[in-house]
Amino acid sequence: MATYPVTEQTKAGRYAERASYDKTLVHSILSSSPIAHVAFNAPSSTSTGTATHPSVLPMLAALSPSPHDPTSSVIYLHGSSHLRLATLCDPTPSNPDGGLPVTLSTTLLDGYVLALSPFSHSVNYRSVIVYGRAHLVTSPDEIMVAMESITNRLVPDRWDNSRVPPTPSEIKQTGILRVEIEGASAKVRAGGPHSDRRDLKNEETVGRVWTGVVPVWEEMGHPVDGSENGAGDAPGYVKGWVRGENAKRRGYAEENAVDQ
Amino acid sequence: MATYPVTEQTKAGRYAERASYDKTLVHSILSSSPIAHVAFNAPSSTSTGTATHPSVLPMLAALSPSPHDPTSSVIYLHGSSHLRLATLCDPTPSNPDGGLPVTLSTTLLDGYVLALSPFSHSVNYRSVIVYGRAHLVTSPDEIMVAMESITNRLVPDRWDNSRVPPTPSEIKQTGILRVEIEGASAKVRAGGPHSDRRDLKNEETVGRVWTGVVPVWEEMGHPVDGSENGAGDAPGYVKGWVRGENAKRRGYAEENAVDQ
Repeated sequence: MATYPVTEQTKAGRYAERASYDKTLVHSILSSSPIAHVAFNAPSSTSTGTATHPSVLPMLAALSPSPHDPTSSVIYLHGSSHLRLATLCDPTPSNPDGGLPVTLSTTLLDGYVLALSPFSHSVNYRSVIVYGRAHLVTSPDEIMVAMESITNRLVPDRWDNSRVPPTPSEIKQTGILRVEIEGASAKVRAGGPHSDRRDLKNEETVGRVWTGVVPVWEEMGHPVDGSENGAGDAPGYVKGWVRGENAKRRGYAEENAVDQ
Repeated sequence: MATYPVTEQTKAGRYAERASYDKTLVHSILSSSPIAHVAFNAPSSTSTGTATHPSVLPMLAALSPSPHDPTSSVIYLHGSSHLRLATLCDPTPSNPDGGLPVTLSTTLLDGYVLALSPFSHSVNYRSVIVYGRAHLVTSPDEIMVAMESITNRLVPDRWDNSRVPPTPSEIKQTGILRVEIEGASAKVRAGGPHSDRRDLKNEETVGRVWTGVVPVWEEMGHPVDGSENGAGDAPGYVKGWVRGENAKRRGYAEENAVDQ
């Protein structure tokens, strides 16, 4: 089992039994959501030595083989404010290699877990935290690879079924960050509620308070034609993806609503 | 319209037309998800003057009237590693009032937006970023208020329908942070795809590439009885909530799949 190294940053604190460094799990959670929250410190904000607010931006994220080493993975980011991020990635006297330290997070909610007492309530979830270093991608070839990776992350096979290749002007206007992964960890809670033993011995409480799990998943609806659409009904690769993902996601949430 | 102040931190950059400081919108997005990503800097990590990785934790979050001023709101946080956060909230020589600067983020995915070219692809979403200061709650009364607020945020009316009040030992073991909101902003993208004008003039492209939106929402399934459940079928306040939320969320995603 390939794992990410356990670092000071990714070392589990509370609920350590829920933590994992398994690359397959980390990657599967990252790939389940197109959006990651990207937290970083603008270099100027840390110069006083006191703690300040990190900045956070939601961005489109796609896992991709590293252009320098196909056996390892990088994360390409695309989204608002890339010009601002690009400036932050620039080399500075205190950081001559450039590269902005970023912390990426994504959480999938899988269920509401209702026990007898509020204290024992919980949620089923899968979350991932990635520590990495972001660099602005400047090579047109790599920008194109990243655009393809992000487009196919939105809808599988979409790249080949859209107007490609991008024009030189589109490539120039697309701001992409490449995040080299330094460490990553996943946290997962799955299964049914676990009430306090004393509550379970109280017949009045057990007979009155319903306990169980309400499963939750991200559901996709029927594709809605755009006002400019001139290609008829949504094609099979879109409809099939919607059907398959819905079944898979619903299946995960329902299976994990009970202890395995 | 009540708004949050525009600060250096919340000032919109790119896509400024998508930004809003409207309290009603900010609160509605915050209340749509039980989980927020909490980013912060451990005080020691910023002492060298160079940018470092922020820490990020997913935590349960519930908006609640401020205990000091019922006309304003605070956010109560509960989740893993509260002991670590509690230590970080302690007063230090450089921060004698205590309180940890935190940046909260939550994003709801509402749709995949497919245009003719990959460059014009997008997602419909609602995101919110909150800048605040977190304090450990120490008063048993306020811990109880926060527990009630978080429990009813999971499932409306759940508090009164569970085993309450919490025992003194449960209250003592529950770590709650109160976040005073210093600034907040929302970002929203809604509507159909907008392709490039040149692509729209190309009949071959328009006739070949399907464009439109795949709506997405968080769907809840049938409540699943826990193995320890002794109270029969899931009660009406749970089933009604599931039905109502599903209809509301699906409705939002589908309505916003086309330009309004």
